[in-house]
Amino acid sequence: MEELAHPYVPRDLKLPGYVPISMSMSSIVTIYLGSSLLVVFLVWLLFGRKKAKVEKLLMCWWAFTGLTHIILEGYFVFSPEFFKDNTSCYLAEVWKEYSKGDSRYAGRDSAVVSVEGITAVIVGPACLLAIYAIAKEKSYSYVLQLVISVGQLYGCLVYFITAILEGDNFATNSFYYYSYYIGANGWWVLIPSLISFRCWNKICAAANNNVEIKTKKKTR
Amino acid sequence: MEELAHPYVPRDLKLPGYVPISMSMSSIVTIYLGSSLLVVFLVWLLFGRKKAKVEKLLMCWWAFTGLTHIILEGYFVFSPEFFKDNTSCYLAEVWKEYSKGDSRYAGRDSAVVSVEGITAVIVGPACLLAIYAIAKEKSYSYVLQLVISVGQLYGCLVYFITAILEGDNFATNSFYYYSYYIGANGWWVLIPSLISFRCWNKICAAANNNVEIKTKKKTR
Repeated sequence: MEELAHPYVPRDLKLPGYVPISMSMSSIVTIYLGSSLLVVFLVWLLFGRKKAKVEKLLMCWWAFTGLTHIILEGYFVFSPEFFKDNTSCYLAEVWKEYSKGDSRYAGRDSAVVSVEGITAVIVGPACLLAIYAIAKEKSYSYVLQLVISVGQLYGCLVYFITAILEGDNFATNSFYYYSYYIGANGWWVLIPSLISFRCWNKICAAANNNVEIKTKKKTR
Repeated sequence: MEELAHPYVPRDLKLPGYVPISMSMSSIVTIYLGSSLLVVFLVWLLFGRKKAKVEKLLMCWWAFTGLTHIILEGYFVFSPEFFKDNTSCYLAEVWKEYSKGDSRYAGRDSAVVSVEGITAVIVGPACLLAIYAIAKEKSYSYVLQLVISVGQLYGCLVYFITAILEGDNFATNSFYYYSYYIGANGWWVLIPSLISFRCWNKICAAANNNVEIKTKKKTR
C-alpha cells in the first residue's frame, strides 16, 4: 500500500496510515474561536451582575482554558492515532492542523504527551474548580489560581525547551511556526504570568495583614 | 578504536568515548549523604535558637534540596559529555552511577535535560531564597515554598510519565531501578507534597482571617 504524503516537518517523520486533513484552516480556527467566545459570553452573562470586572474576566479565562485543556488536549492525549482518522472528526482535524506548527503532536513525542496528559487530566479540571472558587469567594481561590498558573508555565517551559533541545525543526513553515507554535502558546505564557503575579501579591498582602494584626494584639 | 562497553540499559545505547566509572558506589553515596548531613547540621546550628522545630527542618530541607539542584543537577545540565570524563571528577561519577538507575541521563533524553535545566536554574536558587524567607519571616515565605514544591512535583510527574511512555526500560537491573530511580526520586514526591499541603493550609487560613476581619469591620 502506498503511503500518503503528510505535510509535516521533519519530512522523514513516519506516519503510517495518515489520512489527509479534510477541513480548511479557517473552518477549524473559526469553530474553536467561535465556541470559545460562546463560553466566555455565557460565563460573563451568568456572573454579570455579581462580580467585579477583573473577577469576571478571570472566570472567562478559566472556563476557556479549562475546556481547551479537557476537551482539545484531552482528546489528543487519549487518541494516539488521530492522524489516521477518516471521519472528519473535528478534534482530530484540530490536531492534524496544529501539527503543522509542531509535528511532535503527530509524532507522539513523549515530552509533549506527558505535558498534555498532566494538563488535560489535572490542570483542566482544576481550572473549572477555579471558576467555582472565584464565584463562591473560597479562601483557596488565589492559591488555586496561582498553583494552576505555575503548572501551566512549567508545562510551557518543558514544551519549548524540549523542542529547542531536539533541534526546533517541527514546523511546516515559518507561518505555522509563528502563528501556531509561538503565537497560540504565547497566550499560555502571558496570561498565567499575569495571574501568578496578581495572586502572589494578593496572598502576600493577606499574610502581611495577618502579621500586623498579631503584632497589634501583642502590643496591646 | 574499540568502544568500551557501558553498564547501562538499553544495551544498544550509543555512548562513544565512554570512560568507566572509577569510584565505588559506597564512596559516591557516602560523600553525597555526608556533605548533605553537614549542610543540614550547619543550617540547624545557625538557626538553632531562633526558630521553631518545623521551620528549622524546612530550612534544612531547602538547603539540602537547593544545593542538590544547583550543584549536582546543574553540573549534569551543563556537562552533556560527563560520561567521557576521565578525571574521576566527583560530579561526573555521580551521574555515571545514577545512570544505572536511569540511562536517559547518560543518553541525554531531552525531557530529562529540560526538567533538570528548570530545576537547576530556577528551582535551585528559589530554594535558597526560601531559607532566607523563613529566616526573615517574609510575607512571601509560604507562597514561595508552595510554588517551588509544585514545580518539583510537576518535574517529577514529567520525569516519570516520559519514562513510562518510552518503555520504562532504563535501569541496569531492579536494584538500581528501585533504589535510584524510585527510591531517590520518591523523596522529591513525598516532601514537596507535604510542604504543598502545609503551605496551602497556611495561606487559606490567612485568607480566612482577612475575610473575618473585613466582615467584622463591616458589621461594626
